[in-house]
This record gives sequence, C-alpha cells and structure tokens, in this order.
Amino acid sequence: MEKIKAGVIGATGYAGAELVRLLSRHPHAQVEEVSSVSFEGKKLSEVYPSLLGVCDMTLTNGEGIEERCDVIFASLPHGLSEERAERALKAGKKFIDLGADFRLDSAEEYNKWYGKEYKLPYLHEQSVYCIPELHRAALKGRSIVGNPGCYPTSAALALAPLMKERLAGGVVIDAKSGVTGSGRGLSDTTHYPNCNEAFSPYKVACHRHTPEIEQTLSKLAGEQVKITFVPHLLPLNRGIISTCYAELKKPLTAERLHALYTRFYAEERFVRVMPLGACANLRNVRMSNFCDISVHADEHAGRAVIVAAIDNMVKGAAGQAIQNMNILFGLDEGEGLEYVPPAF
Amino acid sequence: MEKIKAGVIGATGYAGAELVRLLSRHPHAQVEEVSSVSFEGKKLSEVYPSLLGVCDMTLTNGEGIEERCDVIFASLPHGLSEERAERALKAGKKFIDLGADFRLDSAEEYNKWYGKEYKLPYLHEQSVYCIPELHRAALKGRSIVGNPGCYPTSAALALAPLMKERLAGGVVIDAKSGVTGSGRGLSDTTHYPNCNEAFSPYKVACHRHTPEIEQTLSKLAGEQVKITFVPHLLPLNRGIISTCYAELKKPLTAERLHALYTRFYAEERFVRVMPLGACANLRNVRMSNFCDISVHADEHAGRAVIVAAIDNMVKGAAGQAIQNMNILFGLDEGEGLEYVPPAF
Amino acid sequence: MEKIKAGVIGATGYAGAELVRLLSRHPHAQVEEVSSVSFEGKKLSEVYPSLLGVCDMTLTNGEGIEERCDVIFASLPHGLSEERAERALKAGKKFIDLGADFRLDSAEEYNKWYGKEYKLPYLHEQSVYCIPELHRAALKGRSIVGNPGCYPTSAALALAPLMKERLAGGVVIDAKSGVTGSGRGLSDTTHYPNCNEAFSPYKVACHRHTPEIEQTLSKLAGEQVKITFVPHLLPLNRGIISTCYAELKKPLTAERLHALYTRFYAEERFVRVMPLGACANLRNVRMSNFCDISVHADEHAGRAVIVAAIDNMVKGAAGQAIQNMNILFGLDEGEGLEYVPPAF
Amino acid sequence: MEKIKAGVIGATGYAGAELVRLLSRHPHAQVEEVSSVSFEGKKLSEVYPSLLGVCDMTLTNGEGIEERCDVIFASLPHGLSEERAERALKAGKKFIDLGADFRLDSAEEYNKWYGKEYKLPYLHEQSVYCIPELHRAALKGRSIVGNPGCYPTSAALALAPLMKERLAGGVVIDAKSGVTGSGRGLSDTTHYPNCNEAFSPYKVACHRHTPEIEQTLSKLAGEQVKITFVPHLLPLNRGIISTCYAELKKPLTAERLHALYTRFYAEERFVRVMPLGACANLRNVRMSNFCDISVHADEHAGRAVIVAAIDNMVKGAAGQAIQNMNILFGLDEGEGLEYVPPAF
Repeated sequence: MEKIKAGVIGATGYAGAELVRLLSRHPHAQVEEVSSVSFEGKKLSEVYPSLLGVCDMTLTNGEGIEERCDVIFASLPHGLSEERAERALKAGKKFIDLGADFRLDSAEEYNKWYGKEYKLPYLHEQSVYCIPELHRAALKGRSIVGNPGCYPTSAALALAPLMKERLAGGVVIDAKSGVTGSGRGLSDTTHYPNCNEAFSPYKVACHRHTPEIEQTLSKLAGEQVKITFVPHLLPLNRGIISTCYAELKKPLTAERLHALYTRFYAEERFVRVMPLGACANLRNVRMSNFCDISVHADEHAGRAVIVAAIDNMVKGAAGQAIQNMNILFGLDEGEGLEYVPPAF
Repeated sequence: MEKIKAGVIGATGYAGAELVRLLSRHPHAQVEEVSSVSFEGKKLSEVYPSLLGVCDMTLTNGEGIEERCDVIFASLPHGLSEERAERALKAGKKFIDLGADFRLDSAEEYNKWYGKEYKLPYLHEQSVYCIPELHRAALKGRSIVGNPGCYPTSAALALAPLMKERLAGGVVIDAKSGVTGSGRGLSDTTHYPNCNEAFSPYKVACHRHTPEIEQTLSKLAGEQVKITFVPHLLPLNRGIISTCYAELKKPLTAERLHALYTRFYAEERFVRVMPLGACANLRNVRMSNFCDISVHADEHAGRAVIVAAIDNMVKGAAGQAIQNMNILFGLDEGEGLEYVPPAF
Repeated sequence: MEKIKAGVIGATGYAGAELVRLLSRHPHAQVEEVSSVSFEGKKLSEVYPSLLGVCDMTLTNGEGIEERCDVIFASLPHGLSEERAERALKAGKKFIDLGADFRLDSAEEYNKWYGKEYKLPYLHEQSVYCIPELHRAALKGRSIVGNPGCYPTSAALALAPLMKERLAGGVVIDAKSGVTGSGRGLSDTTHYPNCNEAFSPYKVACHRHTPEIEQTLSKLAGEQVKITFVPHLLPLNRGIISTCYAELKKPLTAERLHALYTRFYAEERFVRVMPLGACANLRNVRMSNFCDISVHADEHAGRAVIVAAIDNMVKGAAGQAIQNMNILFGLDEGEGLEYVPPAF
Repeated sequence: MEKIKAGVIGATGYAGAELVRLLSRHPHAQVEEVSSVSFEGKKLSEVYPSLLGVCDMTLTNGEGIEERCDVIFASLPHGLSEERAERALKAGKKFIDLGADFRLDSAEEYNKWYGKEYKLPYLHEQSVYCIPELHRAALKGRSIVGNPGCYPTSAALALAPLMKERLAGGVVIDAKSGVTGSGRGLSDTTHYPNCNEAFSPYKVACHRHTPEIEQTLSKLAGEQVKITFVPHLLPLNRGIISTCYAELKKPLTAERLHALYTRFYAEERFVRVMPLGACANLRNVRMSNFCDISVHADEHAGRAVIVAAIDNMVKGAAGQAIQNMNILFGLDEGEGLEYVPPAF
C-alpha cells in the first residue's frame, strides 16, 4: 500500500511539530511537506534539534501543498483555516484542522468567543467535529474535520457517560494543563521562573474552550448544559487533568458509577477506566494517546467526581488528529499511535 | 524584654523544622529546645544542613521540655498531643498543636475521621482552634491552641466572607498542594520520579481536612454546610491553591464580590485581596505568611469562584502557629513573620 | 518469523519496567515472562498503572524462566547475576545483564569497587561488555552480555574518538543524571522535596562507574587512562549529560575536532554529532536511543570539551540492552528502538 | 539612626527586584526610589504581585535619583553604568554596580569580552571590585563598587584557598546555574518547555565571566591563571553550583584540604565549609546569603575537587551588593541578610 502523503501547515508550532514526530513513524503515512510562516527556508531540525536525522525537511511557505499531499493538517491561529480548508476541498483532499475554526457549530458562539465571523459558512456545514470515541460514525464521507481542543477532549470523555444517561447536572470542571498547552510562543506566562514552583488559574470562567465543552455535553444530554470551567497552569510540560464535579440527580454508589463507565468505554482501546479506588494521573498517559478516567462518588454531598487524564499534545491534539486521519482513510484507528506511556 | 523560650516537639518533621527556621530569627522568641524521637542525640543541622551554623542544637527526647520552655509547639502524628498538652497545662505553659488533635470540636467527628478517641475531653473544652483572621478574639486567656490544617486555612479564608453573609451554597473545593504537604516521610507518592511531571487527585472526597473545613464554614454560616473537597498533589515544593466554587443564592457581579472581600479583609495584614482581574498564584506567597485571594464571578452559570493561595508550611503551618503565639503572648501579631515572598 | 521470547528478571525496577515498555512494541520480540521478588503474584500493571492494558502479566518468582524464554534480561543488584547467567547458559539461552556483574574484566577491580568476588570466573571469560558503537563485533557468538552502565555509555561515546587517536589526556568527566538513575527504591536522596529545586554532586571521585569508564578508555587508547569522575543529581526524571574535559596533546581547532567526530560516527544511526556551535541537550534525546554529542575547543586553555547526552533509561540501560539483543539474534540493530524524542 | 536611602535603577530586572525585596526589610536602609525604563509610571507591585503591600512605589525614569538617595544600586545592561556612576560621584553618593562595567581592571579585556570601551577611565581607577570575603579591606573610602558576577563569586570562593597557597593549577570550572541567572527577559532558552526536563551547557569556554574569574584567581595566586569555564543551565529557579577541578602540585589528603578551607574561612559568617564527606547542595543556601563549600580529594588522579553553592540572586547579586553597602556605610556586614535558607 502506498503511504498517505501528509502535509503539515504550521509545522513549527507545538501541535505541528508533534504531528511530524508521530507521523514520521506511522506505518502507512509519511510527512510529505512541512510549512511555516516564521521559519520558511530553514530545516525543521534546525528549529527542533530533537528531529535531527528524523525530519530534516526544509520548511516551505505551504503554497500548493494541497496538490502534493493527500491530507492537510493545519495548526494555525484561529481565523486562518477556512481558506486552507477550501483549497483542500477543491483539490479533493482531506483537511484536518487542529485550530478552533471548525469546532463550533454556532457561528454566533464562534463570533462571541473568537471575535471573528465564519466567512465560508458552507464549509462548516460539511465539516465534522470529532472525538472518535464519541463521534466517529459522523466522520464517514467527510473531508473537513474540526479536531477537538485539549481541554474539551478530556472534559467530554470524562462526562459523556453521565450526560448521555442524564444522571447529573450542575457541572464544574476544574482543569489543569501543562505548559505546552500555551504553545511555542514566548510570553511572561511561560517564562520559566514564572511557571516553575508556581500554580494559578487563568481565564477563570471565560476560557474559549467553554462553549466547545458545552456543545458536546449538550448534544449528549439532549438539552442545554451550562458549566463552570476553570483552567489552571501546571508546572510541567505535558498533560491535562480535568477534575469534573457533577450533582447526581439520584444517589449513585461508586460501584454503580464505575460500572456505567466501564460499560460505556468497553470497546475503546484508548480510554482506560481505572480500577475503582485508583486515581487518574497524567503521568500514566504522557507521550501516549490514552485517556485515563477515574470515577469517584461523594455520597456525603451527592456529587460524582470524574477525573480524566490525557497528554494534551497527543490525545489532546496531534494524536487525536492522526486517529481521525486513520478513520478517514479506512485504516485501523490505532495505527501509528500505539505508544506506551513511560511511567517515569 | 526577655525572649520567649520555645520548645519544638517533632523538630525534624517539616512543620517542626520550619518552626525552627522562623523562630531562629524571631526578635522576641528563641528556640530553647528541639526534640525528635527518630533523631535523638543528633544535631538538627545534621538532619537539615541548611541549618548549619543557625541551629546546631542537639535533639532531645523532649522529656521535661515543659519545664524549660514558655511555649511548646507540638508537631506530632495525631493521637499523641493530648498528653503533651496536659503536661504543658500543668506546668502553666502554652501549648500550640500543629497536629490534628485539637482541631475538631466534635469527638464523634474526630473518631470518625481519625479513628481515635479524645482521652482527655476536658482539654478540648479549654482549647481553641484559631485562624487568627477569623478567630483571634477567642484566643484570649487560652493555653491550648489547635493550629489549623493547611487546606482548611486556605479554604476558610477563601470562603469566609461568602459564608458569613450567607450568599452562597453548593460548595466545591478543588485544592492543590505542593509535596511538602506530605511531610518528611518517604513514600511511593513522594518519590521524585513519581511526582515530577505528574499530577493527580488523591483521597477524593474523603480527606481528613473535610470535617475541619465544614466546621469552620458552618460556624460562619450559622448552619450546617456540606462541601465536596478534593485535594491534588502538585509537582512543586511549597504552596496551596484552593479553587473554591459556590452557587450564588442571588446574582452578584465580580465587582460586588470584590468589594465584599476587600471590606472583609481591610484590616488584615496577611490577607491580600488581589486587584479585580488578577488571579492568585502561589508563587506570590511562597516563603511568606500571606494568603492571597482572587475573586471571580461566573455569571453565566451563577457561581462565584474564589481562589486562595498560601504557603502550606508558613501560613498553613509554622507561620500561623507563630502568629498564634504572638497573640497569646501579647506581641504584635506579625513579629518574626514579615517575610517578603521571592517572586522567582 | 516467530517472535523472540524475552524474560525480564527484576521487572519492577526502573530498567526492568523500561525493558517491558520497549519490548511490548518490538516487532520481533515479545515479553514472555516478568519476575519480581518484591511483587510476586501482583500484576505488573498494578505496580505501573501506565502499563494498564499493555502488560497485565502476573509477576513470577522467575524460577525456570530460562526454559520458557529465548533471552533473559536481568536487572538485579550486583552479586546476583552470575547464577542466573549460568542457568541461561546451561539452557542454551542468551543472557543480558543490566547490572554490574559482567562489566569489569578485572576481578580485582570488581572486588575493590563492589566488595564481592567473581564466584564463577569462567562465565566472565565468555561474557562480553558491549556498547554496540564501540564493541559490536565482539558480540558474535557470545551468550552473556554485560550491558554497560549509564554514565559509562555517555562518557565512552563522548571520548572514544579522542582516545582512539591518542589526542588527549588529563580527563575530567563532570556528569549529571536525572533521578531515575537512582532507581525505584525510596531514599532521602530521591524524596521529592529533597531533589526539587536542588542540585549537588554525590560520590565525588568515588563512584563505581569510574573503573568501567577507565577500562573502556584505556582499551581505546592502548594505555592506562586515569580520570576524575564526578556525578551530580539533576532535578528531572531522565537523561544524562556528561561534560568531558581533556587536555589536548597538540592544538586542535573546533573544526578539526568536529571533523574527527563526524567521521568516527558517520555510520552510526544512534549517535548524532551536533552541528558545530550547537550544544548537546538531554531534552533532544529523552525517550529515545540516541546519543547526541557536541564538540567544543577551548583553545585558550588547550582543552577539548566534549558533551554527550543520552536517555539514561534507554541508551543508558533498556534500549542499549535491546540493541544488544538485536545484534545477538541477527536482527537489524535498530528494531524496536526507532523512537523519536519529543522535544517538549 | 536615620535610614540609608537607597535608589534602585533597573528595579524590574531580577537583580533589581531582589534588591527591593531584601532592602524592604533591612533594619537600617529603605528603598527611596525605584526606576525602570520599561515600566516607568507603573507600580512595582503591578510588575511583581509578590510585592503587593510591600513595595507599591511607582517606577520613575531615574532622573535625579542621585540627589534623593544615599546609595545607588544599578542593575543595567553593560555599557550604561559609567554615566550613572559619574553622576553619583558628583553628588557625593555611593554607587554599587550590579552589572559588568566595573568588574574588569583591564580595559582591553573589557573590550574583548563585552565589545565596548571604558569611556571614563578615571572612574575605573577609583572603583573597586569586591567579594567581601576576599576584598573587603579594599572598600574603605571608595564610592564606586563593581559588584561581582554570580559565577565568579562561587568560583572565586571555591578556589581562593588553593590559589592563595599556590597548591594547584590546571583549573576546570564546571558550573550550573538556575534559570533566574538568565534574567527577566523572554527568550527561547528560558521558555518553560525548553528548560524543564532539559539540561545543557551553553557558551562553552566562551562565557563573559571567564576573564573575571581569571582576574580574581590570578591576583590570589600572584601569577597568570588560565581556566576552562563551562556554564550549564539547570531546570530550577535559583542557585549555582560550581564544581571546580584543580591539579594538585603535591599530594594532599582530603583532611588536609579540609583543614585549609576551615582555617581560611574561620571568621566568615556567610561561608560555610561543609563537614568532610558532605557535598554542597544549592538547596541548603537558597534565599540566603550563604556560600556553602565542600572539599574533596581525588587522590587517584591527583586532583582537588571543590564545590561551591550559592543563591545566584542573593550572594551572587543583590545580597552581596547589600553586604557591600553595609561595609561602605560602616554597618555590621550582615545587617538585613540574616536569612535562614528553607531546606524544602
């Protein structure tokens, strides 16, 4: 079988570089082209010496990449993906957007949270937002994929069973992410002495991932779900823990909750429901496509506490994008993603 | 003025060693004796080379320490403080317990959460639990102080104004602590490669600080308050962030909330209410006795989000104990505690 | 082709667990049995939840493992490997020792540094010490392999070209290792608050890897080489940097040194000589089998400074062991080891 | 006694902010004015929220600061201090430069390493470079002080006794610094995900602190000393470890070396020679003005290994500057610097 030719737009951003890292060992795909506005003409391995001898390709400006590749991954600031999606569509190629432009169904919500308009609305009618474990059926026949955000992936997987069964409401999501979630760009926030031995929330109850999470949960519940979502910055590189609190509509023991979750995810290779009593820890999923979920009941206060752990760069970005690519191309969903997390 | 002679029982534990560190530069107190079961006969500076030349005292077994000191700080596993408190009382000395034995009013709750009985109930009637900003008046004339736990200090200071005014209910406290909170003892949990680049909750909705927090909040609210409390372990040495969620009984803007908090803490030198829009960060309070609080409103979901940051070893343990000592002895409350947190 | 059956003795130690992690995705090998004295009867994934669903095998006591496997990896405290090697030999199987028992040619040196005797000297005559890039030819036909130590691997690869050409003397090796190098066992040294925001040397000029490094360098130079070796503990999980200083016997420019190194390692896939001007950084090799080397000249003081970076658990332990296994079994040397280091 | 009025030029840089932090609790000095080119008009506590309520002064442009203050601390990029020193001199005030402009005696060396000229040579004839433990006598009557660099402070204190006694040569200094050493400015090098779980040397054998170290050692030895100096970046905030290697001209036991050092530093309150067998660790000096030194002998290879640990922001910058101020003003040398390092 000929390998799928993949083009990565924005290859020097963190999600882009992680895509290259993973695709370079994918058995049925290969990196055909890497582009970057900031580093055009440089080798990718000059920007990331970790890729020395692995991907020494020269970064292009991306012009015409749609002609040369079977699938385009775009990792761009919001507002720039529609045009690239249209080009891919016209060239009859697949387009997977790791940015925010194809995540929200509602043009109003997009406008409210991102301050931009959908310029090519027809694209959004054809595109599909896909966390494979929840939406893979919808991918069939599509060409444009809105790859989910990192926080929303963890929160949706954590709460899906409860929402689907309409067992809970009053949702609070207290999420914590490693610093790679802030990307490659320099900022005071990501200056080492400001992050190290530091911890704080940010964008309290006003983070852009809020409407994306509410969209997924509302569809699952069949009703409008409102959440309080507060992200925090963890002093580590990779990984997200979302600690999700939900008021139970009727009392449920930890055992019942656990049974619900193991059943819901029984067929999923990338979701691991932890044994009852254990706690999800991001160290057990780093560098892998796994989402670990632990289930807890606070019978005293009548809440369920569900904790989901993912690697924000893999299951939360590049890995999930490749998982979506695998589905789009009829490959086994786990191809190129069977990494075992290093415990230490 | 003669210096207060302080004895530290359990001086090689983290809270004990921090007491020695702070007391050794207190203008009106001095470390008179340090005791340790595990290291009796060794110098404290052999156990903590950071104290070389600062406190080279030899660790005793603590026998008769009540005779030689004006105040006894005990940093012991629960169940061991009553006897020491009684001895201090009989010797006419002050006793400040950094453990859990004098924190809960209810003998039943103590029994339920700690698996032990109060053997000397009369001591508990005389003792007082004291977060100075909330309870300093109650210290007058007392000899036994239950020094608050680290999580309860941060949670109570975060929620006190809301509870006092009965503005909120449905409280969820998502707390995160540095590893010093687990103490000096070795464990898999605190093995470096298990903590570093790791993050997870622990004792979900079953941590022993739960009843202590509920006790304080209930007294403030004048009614029984139930909370969901989930602690997490942060990959850093010091500091606690408690992110507290509360459902507002009536809508309140961020500005109103902020005004409530600045008013409530207007006279407190160790509580800093952050300017509106800022987020409390534990890096701004490390090595200091400050508690920084930031106030946020989620008008969309009808919740207040209050974030409190403290240094768990200072305001959450040794610093607060010295603050209590200062009050007990009629000193200025801030003596020996005016440390400026290093930002980096 | 049938897969090679691998047995891992000491599978719950760090090197053992890393072997299982890597072997579980090896295309031509499979983990057939895992043993552990401390955790016999438990599942490996109970000890390492990161392996949940990946390796849920039950840990055995290792009795008769030689019968069931084609190759035995032993990761044991020194003094315990000879017996296991003999059993493997008698069963006609391969034995790869990740401990120290088959690293030193000289029984005297072994006795001096490890305080034990070689009880079965004939085994040591048949065994071979193998850093593949320097000694792979010697592996042919052997059954017992002394897998090199982590520090010695980095130091030998850093200095081999200089030593081989007899260009330098007066060697000082200042090495820094992540905490996983200290293993899974709990100790004050590896207690999180003692490592984090900490840094110090240890075993200054008396570390057991000293004779192993001198043995390799002396063979390369054809004369007795004496070094000063000082290891330090880095506050991070994985990786070693060895900064090696050598007095140049005659002046050499950085360009000449660099040319020497690129030539020496031209055919090596796992050694990457960095471009002149760049510095080796352990972040570029983590989770991979690469050894990155940067070459520097201090013309002012007449020294070469060579810096080598490896992942101590991969190239410094489990990865190199698999590389040796691949050679022993006639496989491509890189099978199962083509991991791309994540830059972040 | 009236307090000394201190002005800090460059108060938003790390050294400047640390000066403010320490001076704000100095018993005989007070911060009178803080200036900053980048943040003029803002409050210092807006830039550093850790200083909220401690130093809420508004940042000035520094014009005329010499008139209003008794001592000026300048923390500026090199090339900018001469002019400020001259102004202070004319105003009859003291000037302590935390930058590099008054460290090198030789105008040629300054030009070679910093690419600039001394424009006001007469100032350099009057100024004095001062590590108090080595040069305090020279401070008398001076008005301009070149405050030493962080690496040079640690290296000079480590090697002074050996150099003074002419016992050693062939010096290699392998130094490691926390990230605050790189300052407040953003750079790829200090982007969190690039530092964390990373380690590498930089400016190998070409760092600007090289001539400063050689100047101090040469004066001590009474002859030209050449060193190889290689700095590395540690993944932690504060602290420097300098591991110094020197060839002994005649054999010396560890005991003899240790005796030499304890004698040399017997009267020094800020230098702690560790007990024989212990290793200096930067965790024991953080947030303090101590320099811990451990002494080791490699009899096998004929070298002494001396390890010095300091906090780069305190003894390596702001603390030492205050120590120099104390001497200049006839105060007790340790005033305002008696911080006890937190071990954890």
